[in-house]
Amino acid sequence: MGATGMVGQHFVKFLAGHPWFDLKWVGASGRSAAMKYRDATSWRLEGAMPDGVGDLTVENCVPGNAPHLVFSAMDSSVATGIEQAFAAAGHSVVSNSRNHRMEPDVPLLVPEVNPDHLQVLPLQKANRGWKGQIATNPNCSTIVLSLALGALKQFGIQRVIVTTMQAISGAGYPGVSSMDINANVLPFIGGEEEKMETETQKILGSFGAGQFHPLAASVSAHCNRVPVLDGHTETVSVGFSSRPTREDILDAFAKFRGAPQERELPSAPARPVIYLDEDNRPQPRRDVERERGMAVFVGRLRNCPVLQHKFVALGHNTVRGAAGAAVLNAELMRSEGLLSL
Amino acid sequence: MGATGMVGQHFVKFLAGHPWFDLKWVGASGRSAAMKYRDATSWRLEGAMPDGVGDLTVENCVPGNAPHLVFSAMDSSVATGIEQAFAAAGHSVVSNSRNHRMEPDVPLLVPEVNPDHLQVLPLQKANRGWKGQIATNPNCSTIVLSLALGALKQFGIQRVIVTTMQAISGAGYPGVSSMDINANVLPFIGGEEEKMETETQKILGSFGAGQFHPLAASVSAHCNRVPVLDGHTETVSVGFSSRPTREDILDAFAKFRGAPQERELPSAPARPVIYLDEDNRPQPRRDVERERGMAVFVGRLRNCPVLQHKFVALGHNTVRGAAGAAVLNAELMRSEGLLSL
Amino acid sequence: MGATGMVGQHFVKFLAGHPWFDLKWVGASGRSAAMKYRDATSWRLEGAMPDGVGDLTVENCVPGNAPHLVFSAMDSSVATGIEQAFAAAGHSVVSNSRNHRMEPDVPLLVPEVNPDHLQVLPLQKANRGWKGQIATNPNCSTIVLSLALGALKQFGIQRVIVTTMQAISGAGYPGVSSMDINANVLPFIGGEEEKMETETQKILGSFGAGQFHPLAASVSAHCNRVPVLDGHTETVSVGFSSRPTREDILDAFAKFRGAPQERELPSAPARPVIYLDEDNRPQPRRDVERERGMAVFVGRLRNCPVLQHKFVALGHNTVRGAAGAAVLNAELMRSEGLLSL
Amino acid sequence: MGATGMVGQHFVKFLAGHPWFDLKWVGASGRSAAMKYRDATSWRLEGAMPDGVGDLTVENCVPGNAPHLVFSAMDSSVATGIEQAFAAAGHSVVSNSRNHRMEPDVPLLVPEVNPDHLQVLPLQKANRGWKGQIATNPNCSTIVLSLALGALKQFGIQRVIVTTMQAISGAGYPGVSSMDINANVLPFIGGEEEKMETETQKILGSFGAGQFHPLAASVSAHCNRVPVLDGHTETVSVGFSSRPTREDILDAFAKFRGAPQERELPSAPARPVIYLDEDNRPQPRRDVERERGMAVFVGRLRNCPVLQHKFVALGHNTVRGAAGAAVLNAELMRSEGLLSL
Repeated sequence: MGATGMVGQHFVKFLAGHPWFDLKWVGASGRSAAMKYRDATSWRLEGAMPDGVGDLTVENCVPGNAPHLVFSAMDSSVATGIEQAFAAAGHSVVSNSRNHRMEPDVPLLVPEVNPDHLQVLPLQKANRGWKGQIATNPNCSTIVLSLALGALKQFGIQRVIVTTMQAISGAGYPGVSSMDINANVLPFIGGEEEKMETETQKILGSFGAGQFHPLAASVSAHCNRVPVLDGHTETVSVGFSSRPTREDILDAFAKFRGAPQERELPSAPARPVIYLDEDNRPQPRRDVERERGMAVFVGRLRNCPVLQHKFVALGHNTVRGAAGAAVLNAELMRSEGLLSL
Repeated sequence: MGATGMVGQHFVKFLAGHPWFDLKWVGASGRSAAMKYRDATSWRLEGAMPDGVGDLTVENCVPGNAPHLVFSAMDSSVATGIEQAFAAAGHSVVSNSRNHRMEPDVPLLVPEVNPDHLQVLPLQKANRGWKGQIATNPNCSTIVLSLALGALKQFGIQRVIVTTMQAISGAGYPGVSSMDINANVLPFIGGEEEKMETETQKILGSFGAGQFHPLAASVSAHCNRVPVLDGHTETVSVGFSSRPTREDILDAFAKFRGAPQERELPSAPARPVIYLDEDNRPQPRRDVERERGMAVFVGRLRNCPVLQHKFVALGHNTVRGAAGAAVLNAELMRSEGLLSL
Repeated sequence: MGATGMVGQHFVKFLAGHPWFDLKWVGASGRSAAMKYRDATSWRLEGAMPDGVGDLTVENCVPGNAPHLVFSAMDSSVATGIEQAFAAAGHSVVSNSRNHRMEPDVPLLVPEVNPDHLQVLPLQKANRGWKGQIATNPNCSTIVLSLALGALKQFGIQRVIVTTMQAISGAGYPGVSSMDINANVLPFIGGEEEKMETETQKILGSFGAGQFHPLAASVSAHCNRVPVLDGHTETVSVGFSSRPTREDILDAFAKFRGAPQERELPSAPARPVIYLDEDNRPQPRRDVERERGMAVFVGRLRNCPVLQHKFVALGHNTVRGAAGAAVLNAELMRSEGLLSL
Repeated sequence: MGATGMVGQHFVKFLAGHPWFDLKWVGASGRSAAMKYRDATSWRLEGAMPDGVGDLTVENCVPGNAPHLVFSAMDSSVATGIEQAFAAAGHSVVSNSRNHRMEPDVPLLVPEVNPDHLQVLPLQKANRGWKGQIATNPNCSTIVLSLALGALKQFGIQRVIVTTMQAISGAGYPGVSSMDINANVLPFIGGEEEKMETETQKILGSFGAGQFHPLAASVSAHCNRVPVLDGHTETVSVGFSSRPTREDILDAFAKFRGAPQERELPSAPARPVIYLDEDNRPQPRRDVERERGMAVFVGRLRNCPVLQHKFVALGHNTVRGAAGAAVLNAELMRSEGLLSL
């Protein structure tokens, strides 16, 4: 759903050749319906449109012909009602939209970090009277932070200050005007800081007794747009209750694995967090495409005079931060037997 | 001194038409000596070389023919010895080089913030047996931070975390390779974080009983290079002992004035710190040239869940962060009767 | 008219402090009408909105309250009818819109090149039954070419091949998506090549016996967008009937003056075409703001093995190519007594 | 040879996994000799250094241990003597350096266009008294033009005017200063225009009676640097003696195949020239990596009012314009039995 937009195109590209999921239905808004996907879409990604997709007929975003598993790349202005209609009708909606992320009965997943949050789904179905379900992935800048911090959760995260330098592709197409960002920095992205602060707490928190318990850590985000194509770079200062050493942190990054790695999910990176030793890495243009864009790269771990440790993190905002995140979520759900495929 | 390099050119440009200081001597390394400034210099700044300068003959950086007041834009690899030789010979050396900044008897000045640090000069002369003196200005990223924090010093600064997004002009010419920075972020600038952390403490500290007392605040810097031409943008989180309100902070920014404003020094901006109300300002490309590049622009003041307050600051790295800073230092020194002009 | 848009803002900025023309009326589309200009406009230019303009009340684009001279910065989708209504009602409409440029009774002016084309105005009034009149300036890429070629018209221009590398500001705001132009070249600008080819012929042609006689030269344009903020750079190969030498060409550039220079019109550059000797100039970022953006800079004159001579030209697309061009047109018209001021 | 530089790194990357050629010797200047390639090289390409290469020991560029086939990526300041020494000693030197390109007994190859130029090699050996031989590939901007024109050679090329918009990677590392190219165009690249003009004539010319007969076409080049990472974009106007139609040209592009395609050389693109129908393609950032960077993309074929036809061409300057070109040359030579492997 939302298949013709930029995020939708990233889904189409990411799903090409997927061993489990076969793209056979594309939904979009009314004006594209009944057109061939090829004709309804201004393909803007590098490389050609994957084979076979162009001949699919775009359908309206209404349940019926759609398969059980639907990915949602819809604009937040329309996603709420449509996603709920699909879930009510028995579909599993795996959504990249922000609309349901913070709902008390919707999982906000980073499969390596909080796969247990899927336990909320029976409650969601009961609450809502749905035959289907909705699961979500975080905002593109949140996911970079939460994967890096996910590796360090054991140390008792207490305080986090993060500054982002976000790529233009995070704003879609046409997105950011070149008149605004050419040789410039925009020190504001509407709603982004709030999302980073609250989503991170939910993801790093726990689920129990029928509800989410956000991590009781204070998180402060400064979000900026920079003239970079793909890849959100984030500087992170963090303080922990257990006061780990630098070696503890490096060791935790190196050993971090989660359910996707253990179950060898098709889109899982071999290691979700990769530490780069060079003193000037990670860099978005040089590192973002590594590991198919599914890992988060960290580097420059050093002492923070204010909050114990500081480092740099980088992730691919349209892959690990959007389409790839949702596909990995669906793979996790399938590995738990939650999809009727 | 160092007149043919990029920082030297900024000095030449900034001094053009100065009401107090007349550029009549230019020094550079041996290979330029005896050439006309015009022939010795690849002029790289926008606009033409100021009238009259081109015909000056470049001299070796040795005391003798030089006037009492000399500005130093020399590379740090050679600055120490030459600056000391000039000071020993009776010159007032106002330096942008980093070499003497952290010396215990050298003032590291931001005229609006710590003009009283000039009190160290008699001690410097006595210690060193110099007839002249050396005064310095901070690193280009430090000065942006220290002016913004200078306005807030009264509230008892305790903890500061700053992330910089620095312009390429900060690295001189040829400086940063386009292969490194085109559509990229470089999350490392050698030595910069250490300079920001220690210089800020010295500037915001006090001078008394013959020595500097650095501010006992913890300062943590993350320094990055971004593809911007001029202007260092900085995100700042800060905690204070007196827990000021947002209104207190805005009021402090609005009312902040220092010696340069009170004495109406020629290069002083009318207000050293200017708060911009728009939610997406300051921006380097759009704001950096305002106020002749001599003010620091701040914006987006909001609550920091970790350290009380956070905001964005922007300053012109080659003007307020280099040539303009040194000229303002010299103006301050003259206003105190410290220059033999 | 069209005062709140990007081109309109350039008019407002360029007219600030004009010695002849006082901005006292601003027109825009209905949704802005009755608002203060300050409130109706997202000011996007560097520097602040000029004093006084912000308090003007935006009016609908209908004749009546408007002064005799009106500048049109309207979008071409609406300009035709409105400009004609104003001309019919007795106004002098000096337009930057493309709508009337190629009409057989409308002058397409470059004041240094074809001031005699104003002779068509009585015919225009008679044809149209208008009490007022319309005059136009060329497209922003045309004007750079036609000024450079205007200096060489005497040599008998026969064949011209031009490739443009155009700035993003030429497309207005939001204009070009950063997703399209970041670290990229767009080898197509809709309609631009046709405009360059036909407008250049009209401008360099003559007016006589009641009609325009386009120059019988073949002109071929390749138009490209590049990631530059302001300034269209153009590579030009040209062949002449009189086979001038390189020295003839340089001499013609150096001596070129037109009516604006002779009459010392307020916005006239001292020299309309300035040749730069350095082998790597002109460059848009370094040269475009010189001469208030009103001159065209040329350089790299050398032999063209195919068409005799080749060179590079640069002009400021939003100043000399838009607002400044129109204001200079109005100054020319006033100097000829064609405005009822 | 020259293995540690930027072009050398492109060779190393391009040769990884090559079915015919196994990289087993790396040569560089004296200061790298005896070091592991990993330690001698600042790897700057995207992705990691290919397996196995890092452990090779860098040797001095003297014949002896080197294998029969050596690729030269040496700087032109040193290439002449070293390449000749290797050729004299019996090596086949396939060089990307410019030093020998225009020699009367050295082939300047584009395998799809002039494979017959290899016939000069026996003469070269005889002339020089060498046991080995030297073959070269053109300059990176020449090769884009000559492949596109190679497809059209049959129509009798008479006049060509080309304007390039060249990527920064064409200048190596550190190459172009970001202070020069950030948001700018540099309208000059030293020596580039001369190379494009003369190399194109040699490539498109014939070999017979023991000498090269350059094509008697006039070629005029305007060379510019733009802020693009990889990919040289070129606007081309061309006139032919046989006056082909637009359909003739499109057909020639579509049918163009050469020896590399016929012989299915490993690095040959399926089609050397690919026409893109979209009106705003090819674009460097979006198209340059297609076909492994070995094809030239053309588009926007339209009438040129001056020289019959015009179009846009794009090629990958560090792949098809450098390392890939040399490897394809070596493959061609092997397919002709010219290498002692």
